[in-house]
Amino acid sequence: MIRTTNFNAGPAALPLEVLQKAQNEFLDFKGAGMSVMELSHRSKEYDAVHQHAKALLKELMEIPDDYEILFLQGGASLQFSMIPMNFLSKEKTAYFAMTGAWSEKALAEAKLFGNTSIIASSEADTYNHIPDVSNIPADGVYLHLTSNNTIFGTQWREFPDSPIPVVADMSSDILSRKIDVSKFDIIYAGAQKNLGPSGVTVVIIKKEWLTKENEQVPKILKYSTHAKANSLYNTPPTFAIYMLSLVLEWLKEKGGLDAIEKRNSEKARILYSAIDESNGFYRGHAKSDSRSNMNVTFTLKNDELTKSFIEQAKEEKMSGLGGHRSVGGCRASIYNAVSIEDCEKLAAFMKKFREAH
Amino acid sequence: MIRTTNFNAGPAALPLEVLQKAQNEFLDFKGAGMSVMELSHRSKEYDAVHQHAKALLKELMEIPDDYEILFLQGGASLQFSMIPMNFLSKEKTAYFAMTGAWSEKALAEAKLFGNTSIIASSEADTYNHIPDVSNIPADGVYLHLTSNNTIFGTQWREFPDSPIPVVADMSSDILSRKIDVSKFDIIYAGAQKNLGPSGVTVVIIKKEWLTKENEQVPKILKYSTHAKANSLYNTPPTFAIYMLSLVLEWLKEKGGLDAIEKRNSEKARILYSAIDESNGFYRGHAKSDSRSNMNVTFTLKNDELTKSFIEQAKEEKMSGLGGHRSVGGCRASIYNAVSIEDCEKLAAFMKKFREAH
Repeated sequence: MIRTTNFNAGPAALPLEVLQKAQNEFLDFKGAGMSVMELSHRSKEYDAVHQHAKALLKELMEIPDDYEILFLQGGASLQFSMIPMNFLSKEKTAYFAMTGAWSEKALAEAKLFGNTSIIASSEADTYNHIPDVSNIPADGVYLHLTSNNTIFGTQWREFPDSPIPVVADMSSDILSRKIDVSKFDIIYAGAQKNLGPSGVTVVIIKKEWLTKENEQVPKILKYSTHAKANSLYNTPPTFAIYMLSLVLEWLKEKGGLDAIEKRNSEKARILYSAIDESNGFYRGHAKSDSRSNMNVTFTLKNDELTKSFIEQAKEEKMSGLGGHRSVGGCRASIYNAVSIEDCEKLAAFMKKFREAH
Repeated sequence: MIRTTNFNAGPAALPLEVLQKAQNEFLDFKGAGMSVMELSHRSKEYDAVHQHAKALLKELMEIPDDYEILFLQGGASLQFSMIPMNFLSKEKTAYFAMTGAWSEKALAEAKLFGNTSIIASSEADTYNHIPDVSNIPADGVYLHLTSNNTIFGTQWREFPDSPIPVVADMSSDILSRKIDVSKFDIIYAGAQKNLGPSGVTVVIIKKEWLTKENEQVPKILKYSTHAKANSLYNTPPTFAIYMLSLVLEWLKEKGGLDAIEKRNSEKARILYSAIDESNGFYRGHAKSDSRSNMNVTFTLKNDELTKSFIEQAKEEKMSGLGGHRSVGGCRASIYNAVSIEDCEKLAAFMKKFREAH
């Protein structure tokens, strides 16, 4: 098998070792005589997987004891709605820092439930940088931000010291670097970039929020329901959580967040150098100080050249390099499972392609 | 590998052929050089899987053209809330036929959004039968029912001719028998019994409902959002939908719903005979005319004997025979992937155990 070098934006590349392990035990999970996806979610075998994933996430991210870790469904898109449904109201205001399409979707859903206000935005510059948030009003119920922006290729390098609780959508850079969890009250992330396959959403929420939920929220959409039931209130996506547990094991073996952060910085450096050294042949979308280490976005002179770049890369077994359908151009998503060698391969191709045109 | 005979209530047994096929192409999906779970949900390779699953479901269930087929997340539990959130209000009434814990949960969530009324219930008889629903009021927005009740082991054999639209939770018997889809306006089902692994929810909804949604519903929780986007509004649980497509292929190869219905009736007959011929050693919970062909529930004389039955079955590589934690006793869940031979094995064990005690 020739493995394609996978620059997909999500669902995305998973570590080959993880896939191989899952394949090996696919029919018989640890001698149970059945697949892990055939186990009851109430069985002791599955419970061990569930607890293991939770414990590893706590360990790797150094999540303090006063946070709950939840495994939910519905992706970040459901969180856009669940958070304001539970915590916003007509008497309260949530503040938003706008950095792209995902912030916009989060804002739109929040508007249904209470007051919202944009305190910072880079929309006027086609979201090519992380806006300044030095003046966060102290009267908000929370500040919402998107830590990494897949479509525009920007990433918060430093998080604000906020007088109000910070809620962060970390779908596309969770576990890619060390962060101080205590700076956030709620962190959420769809799994399909750095955590595993699509279908499971990780929520890390400060326990004190569990007593502040609005009434009139359906039980299934309350965080407290899932916290009380250890994310087993209803049937969880067991196979996706199992895959998450394998990805977390892999990450730990690789040296945890310190090591992966170093590796991710090096990967990004390789690709941004290929852009910066191209004399304008490749133009990076994000401003230098806002560049994402997860999604490297760039454009070529025209659509024809862009198309040709993507097609030729595909011939050399590199896929997923098209930009998001809303913006076009090119994008290399280099999540944890993408290696330094993969990035070197792409950088070499970028050089070769440039010289040929 | 010795495969355990799996009587789990869900997540449950999957066809061995399906698991083997998924295992074989786990690392390299049809020459893509990556796992199906690493494909972008916007790729043509994944799109083929998505459309294939939808087309097979339409074909197997003979779903008329005026219905949408959606692949969502959150299980039946989220549907308990999404349906009234979209279609109920303080000016409207939804009627409920109560047949167990799942009906109760659906009712509880609906109460948040409008008026509800119970038109039939077998609660007083510990839900041991399907109640009579011959007098359905004509003024309701819909009648909700649960087609099969995993916990109490009852199943609707005939569906009512209703003057108002019928909404059915078919999580535990969808695709187990032929049904007339046109008798329902909305059918929903979590996948983890007859359809595939947990993590995907199938919703079959008459298109005319898509224009009747309440305002003030978050975009992610509107059916029209998912219908317009062909269930690709946000990242779907791609691997779970892929597994669903394989299960549907398997079902088609086995002869479709006519064949599986016949097989399921025979399986149920084998186990109910073992109960009925035991001179009261095993006592079935459900009344004869309400017996489920999916979940065979029974009790033994006392807890000690029950425990011993479950343990000895486990020694003979039969698992999942404990009743739901809320009711105790025994339960054999015999979804599509459980074979006639599996049921014969259990019936023989039941006989042997009875003779020994």
